[in-house]
Amino acid sequence: MTTFDLKLGEVTLDFDPASADKDAGVVFIGKIKSPWNTRSECPKNMRLARERGQAASIKLNDVYKAGLSDLDAISHVVILVWLNEARRDIIVKQPSHSEGATRGVFSLRSPNRPNPIGVSIAKITGIDVERGIINIEATDFLNGTPVIDIKPYLPSVDAIVDADPGWHS
Amino acid sequence: MTTFDLKLGEVTLDFDPASADKDAGVVFIGKIKSPWNTRSECPKNMRLARERGQAASIKLNDVYKAGLSDLDAISHVVILVWLNEARRDIIVKQPSHSEGATRGVFSLRSPNRPNPIGVSIAKITGIDVERGIINIEATDFLNGTPVIDIKPYLPSVDAIVDADPGWHS
Repeated sequence: MTTFDLKLGEVTLDFDPASADKDAGVVFIGKIKSPWNTRSECPKNMRLARERGQAASIKLNDVYKAGLSDLDAISHVVILVWLNEARRDIIVKQPSHSEGATRGVFSLRSPNRPNPIGVSIAKITGIDVERGIINIEATDFLNGTPVIDIKPYLPSVDAIVDADPGWHS
Repeated sequence: MTTFDLKLGEVTLDFDPASADKDAGVVFIGKIKSPWNTRSECPKNMRLARERGQAASIKLNDVYKAGLSDLDAISHVVILVWLNEARRDIIVKQPSHSEGATRGVFSLRSPNRPNPIGVSIAKITGIDVERGIINIEATDFLNGTPVIDIKPYLPSVDAIVDADPGWHS
């Protein structure tokens, strides 16, 4: 990738993880089906996605369908995706609406990071194990985004109500 | 890996993602430093880890240290790790303490899944950007586990208090 779109104060690594030797490999297990086909229309986070009121789904490849059994008893899933359009060489970034401030990428939810894995939580509205489909209430992922894992959301370990988001608030 | 340790009712894929062609690759950005050196002593989840009252840390490789800036204002991190001892070919699994019941792996937090990525939330107790260290209150990851991403925990999108964990409860 070119570095032409770097903003003032942004820092890149001396190498691009996208072209470096990899330590491990992922397989894509399915895809997001969402109403968002361009980055400009895609909600920036799940709060905004829920406000839009548009449903979405996850379609698993046939070989992985059996892994969906027993998920129907659970209300929410943690979805891990591979953000294949992201830059992997940015380590300090100027997020949008930051008025010029730059931040370490590990303090941001930006897609641009050494391993461009996105994590978001969605409410399950239906499961069809035979067809490999999980219907969800909303998503902040683009249509066609590759899915790499699905986990049950467990409030006993995943819901930290009094967490402080600092300057994100 | 051998299939000798499959339990009754467990199902494997027709192929092993560990040896299949990969769709994307990850780089290890650092390591977990934890008190747990064997699986038997490692807590099974973050609730149990917190109860043990033992601190832990994340040590990033030097090249990624700059990505930690601005995380000091945030109370909790989402840690993504690569569970390199896990099996990737199990799709229906008999979890421990299930009295023989089997479950689809996407309804479980088991390390054994097509992409063995672990996700857990930890409270930050200190950050040393110069040394590339995040001190955390507790961890349910083994000492030496490779880290692949760190994100800020944002309660507005990540804390779903009324989520129903179904039979996990």
